Amino acid sequence: MESTRSRLAHRLAEAGQSHLVQFWDELTPEQQAEMTSDLEAMDFQEINKFFRSAMEVSHSSKQEKMDARMEPVPREVLGSVTRDRDCLKDWEEKGMRCISQSSVAVLLLAGGQGTRLGVSYPKGMYDVGLPSHKTLFQIQAERILRLQQLAEQRHGAKCCIPWYIMTSGRTMESTKTFFSRHSYFGLCKDNVIFFQQGMLPAMDYNGKIILESKNKLAMAPDGNGGLYRALGTQGIVEDMDQRGVKFIHVYCVDNILVKVADPAFVGFCVQKGGDCGAKVVEKTNPTEAVGVVCKVDGRYQVVEYSEITLATAEKRSADGRLMFNAGNVANHFFTLAFLRDIVQTFEPQLQHHVAQKKILYVDTQGRLIKPDKPNGIKMEKFVFDIFQFAKAFVVYEVLREDEFSALKNADSQDGKDTPTTVKHALMSLHHRWVLNAAGHFIDENGTRVPAIPRQKHSTFPSLIPSSSSFPHSLKDGTDLPIKCEISPLVSYGGEGLEELVSGREFRPTLVIDESGAHELVKNGL
Amino acid sequence: MESTRSRLAHRLAEAGQSHLVQFWDELTPEQQAEMTSDLEAMDFQEINKFFRSAMEVSHSSKQEKMDARMEPVPREVLGSVTRDRDCLKDWEEKGMRCISQSSVAVLLLAGGQGTRLGVSYPKGMYDVGLPSHKTLFQIQAERILRLQQLAEQRHGAKCCIPWYIMTSGRTMESTKTFFSRHSYFGLCKDNVIFFQQGMLPAMDYNGKIILESKNKLAMAPDGNGGLYRALGTQGIVEDMDQRGVKFIHVYCVDNILVKVADPAFVGFCVQKGGDCGAKVVEKTNPTEAVGVVCKVDGRYQVVEYSEITLATAEKRSADGRLMFNAGNVANHFFTLAFLRDIVQTFEPQLQHHVAQKKILYVDTQGRLIKPDKPNGIKMEKFVFDIFQFAKAFVVYEVLREDEFSALKNADSQDGKDTPTTVKHALMSLHHRWVLNAAGHFIDENGTRVPAIPRQKHSTFPSLIPSSSSFPHSLKDGTDLPIKCEISPLVSYGGEGLEELVSGREFRPTLVIDESGAHELVKNGL
Repeated sequence: MESTRSRLAHRLAEAGQSHLVQFWDELTPEQQAEMTSDLEAMDFQEINKFFRSAMEVSHSSKQEKMDARMEPVPREVLGSVTRDRDCLKDWEEKGMRCISQSSVAVLLLAGGQGTRLGVSYPKGMYDVGLPSHKTLFQIQAERILRLQQLAEQRHGAKCCIPWYIMTSGRTMESTKTFFSRHSYFGLCKDNVIFFQQGMLPAMDYNGKIILESKNKLAMAPDGNGGLYRALGTQGIVEDMDQRGVKFIHVYCVDNILVKVADPAFVGFCVQKGGDCGAKVVEKTNPTEAVGVVCKVDGRYQVVEYSEITLATAEKRSADGRLMFNAGNVANHFFTLAFLRDIVQTFEPQLQHHVAQKKILYVDTQGRLIKPDKPNGIKMEKFVFDIFQFAKAFVVYEVLREDEFSALKNADSQDGKDTPTTVKHALMSLHHRWVLNAAGHFIDENGTRVPAIPRQKHSTFPSLIPSSSSFPHSLKDGTDLPIKCEISPLVSYGGEGLEELVSGREFRPTLVIDESGAHELVKNGL
Repeated sequence: MESTRSRLAHRLAEAGQSHLVQFWDELTPEQQAEMTSDLEAMDFQEINKFFRSAMEVSHSSKQEKMDARMEPVPREVLGSVTRDRDCLKDWEEKGMRCISQSSVAVLLLAGGQGTRLGVSYPKGMYDVGLPSHKTLFQIQAERILRLQQLAEQRHGAKCCIPWYIMTSGRTMESTKTFFSRHSYFGLCKDNVIFFQQGMLPAMDYNGKIILESKNKLAMAPDGNGGLYRALGTQGIVEDMDQRGVKFIHVYCVDNILVKVADPAFVGFCVQKGGDCGAKVVEKTNPTEAVGVVCKVDGRYQVVEYSEITLATAEKRSADGRLMFNAGNVANHFFTLAFLRDIVQTFEPQLQHHVAQKKILYVDTQGRLIKPDKPNGIKMEKFVFDIFQFAKAFVVYEVLREDEFSALKNADSQDGKDTPTTVKHALMSLHHRWVLNAAGHFIDENGTRVPAIPRQKHSTFPSLIPSSSSFPHSLKDGTDLPIKCEISPLVSYGGEGLEELVSGREFRPTLVIDESGAHELVKNGL
């Protein structure tokens, strides 16, 4: 025991981290034991090395201008749902064939907690308030189930889409419990594989690990790019290989519209011979806060919005579109061969990014301090850091309103990316599915509601002299969507609805699930 | 007196509107006199005719589908700031020349009150909360001043841009008083010409005029298309002719970014030989609630978003853009010759549109009733109703973020088109002007702020495990703009700022006005 302690003290001293045990004598034996085991597990030399190279990169990258080195995604590696409509069916066919052969897996990045959302549990467990009250996890699970079913129907053989779920130290237990409690939402338990990303300590600007209490280090997950290290340490690449997985769709938990294992995306990437691909949405406003996929010095990467100048953000191609318009939505395609190369060869070459943060800490007197400006850094890798290693990078452009709406903030906040906005985005999509399947909606008077419903005006209590103001406000029709929810078990992407809705009129709320199309009575069950 | 009354009673009886005087005996002599004069001034036969034909059109148009008859704006009549960048300079030159010859006038549609905004005065008098606290009227006035100055500098001769302001019965007095009190914001009083649009009564579904009290008819302005009748009845066309005006830019009061008399727009229309033109922004989302400029049966018109099916709204051209993407922003160009034809020949042919409304009314017992569903109609013409008569219609596409942000709602409402959003849109534009003139912004620590500032994260009080969530949220960078306001007296469209800002670093709030560039001290004066 004593030798353990002195060995640890020696390691800490060598690494310049002795301050971590400055309160040792004030700790209870239990706290001492716990802290010893925490510290034992840490490779301080490695952490210090991470710190040094992350800070180096961070400093050097600040000086050089990215702009001159950036090139847009060339048209020949781009597939677009709006510009290549003739190919969509082929791509989708191709993807479905891959799925039917059980060669497609999905991988969910779910290491984050819903802190900005105001909850302490994993985001995937959040109920955004749909009529069904399904959580994000359940919606995704049911999309997988439906897609397996579709592939089986089309190709006549049982198939499986394994679902890899990356959690973090903070979310692992609650996530697993949640899935178990819900019987894996109908999925086969063996095909839902949890694994855990690493954690790294937060450090001050001098490379000292920060204590968040006398007996606890300030730890945080190592970024969604922690995926690649975890894939190796936890044997995930091997597992994929054993299952015959060839292609992997990686996505983030917070996008309610995510098309998990999207056959068109997978099919496009496979057909193009891509080893690495990104799904993007068109950035249309130069100052929109979205990272863009582009080439830098001839290699693909995501350039963050805060890294480019306005002049670059405003550049346009001859067709009038923004030159750098491939907005990253954290939906990626990888071949297993590519991932294996990453894990075995390239991952260690990736530097951590530095995020300056305000980090709660205890001072030398042991007092808990809330800093009012950033006092340290968090080290992270990003999931897209590996684009640079692709031999055949491809980009697939989809429509934002069909495929991307992220849950980030609580409803009380600034009104963007909230439970309400994501719920509306999903209902708007399902409303459009019903219309495109020749269904109709009627209002309380039995009148058909137009496809883009009129905005509600506060016309009561008297005539509004709006005559000389602009009658067509530029509002998003998704603001006040028709209340409509379609179970993923019935339709993955709008298919199969004609027989349920064609020629019929519905009063919202409309719910379509395995038992058919129902109107929910207001204020009722 | 008695004969006046019996003549009126006879006219009312003939028109089926005798109910208007059902409370006659309960009125005071003053109320009787006032009502007599109101009723005397009305042409009931004409109003009844308006009602009949408006209802007829409204019924027939409901049955037929618009979709099959719609065609998009052909490329050859379209000028685009993103796709025709090589022409921009020429168009702008051309427009400046027209302005320097005093042949361009602007015409403001300002008949509406700020009811949805929660104020009872004209919208143009609203202060959205800019550092300068300028009202919409003042911003527009100063843009006119600056543009006159630019044209004079460029062409060496005094010139004038007459400003025609259409008010309604409800806004005329307060608008005139406001301008007078502010000395016309530096404009020559003679060049600010007020005129008044007409009013029409609200009617029930049987064509009976609605009483809003025992002695008052429910009246409302006759729509922004009431412009054309007013141009004739109030001698505005003649006034324009006498001043040598040849081209008119018509716009709505609520767009804080409006480029009044926009030289590029005017120059494009003139160069193209257009007699009638519309400025549009690209509609990018099929369900966006904006009317689109298109051809119907070979004639141009604005089709409202509620009139088209989803299938039509989702149609795309080969280039991937929405086929019907010319979003109307109520910015129009007319030649005087065209307006004269409208006033003299075509205006009477225009049918009123029917807007169903909840209208406060008194029942036969004289009780004031608040209906809970629409109980009558308001008749309006729209400013774009005359597109169909154009011989050479042209369309000019601009960037929404540069030119359109409308003030519609109070800040407490749904968060769109509010004082805050329009203020942010203006500050974001001015921020971009400063960057493009090689100025920089720094934060409280002296660090340069990136062109697209990072979103504020609620990182306090502890590390946020955001690692596995999407690091690039798709937020609009205009959400949290750098606080920056540039007086229109200094710059109309971003010009002339280099000497003031190039190479300099500013801490927000930055205000640039005639006395130079200043940083406002926070919590200060």
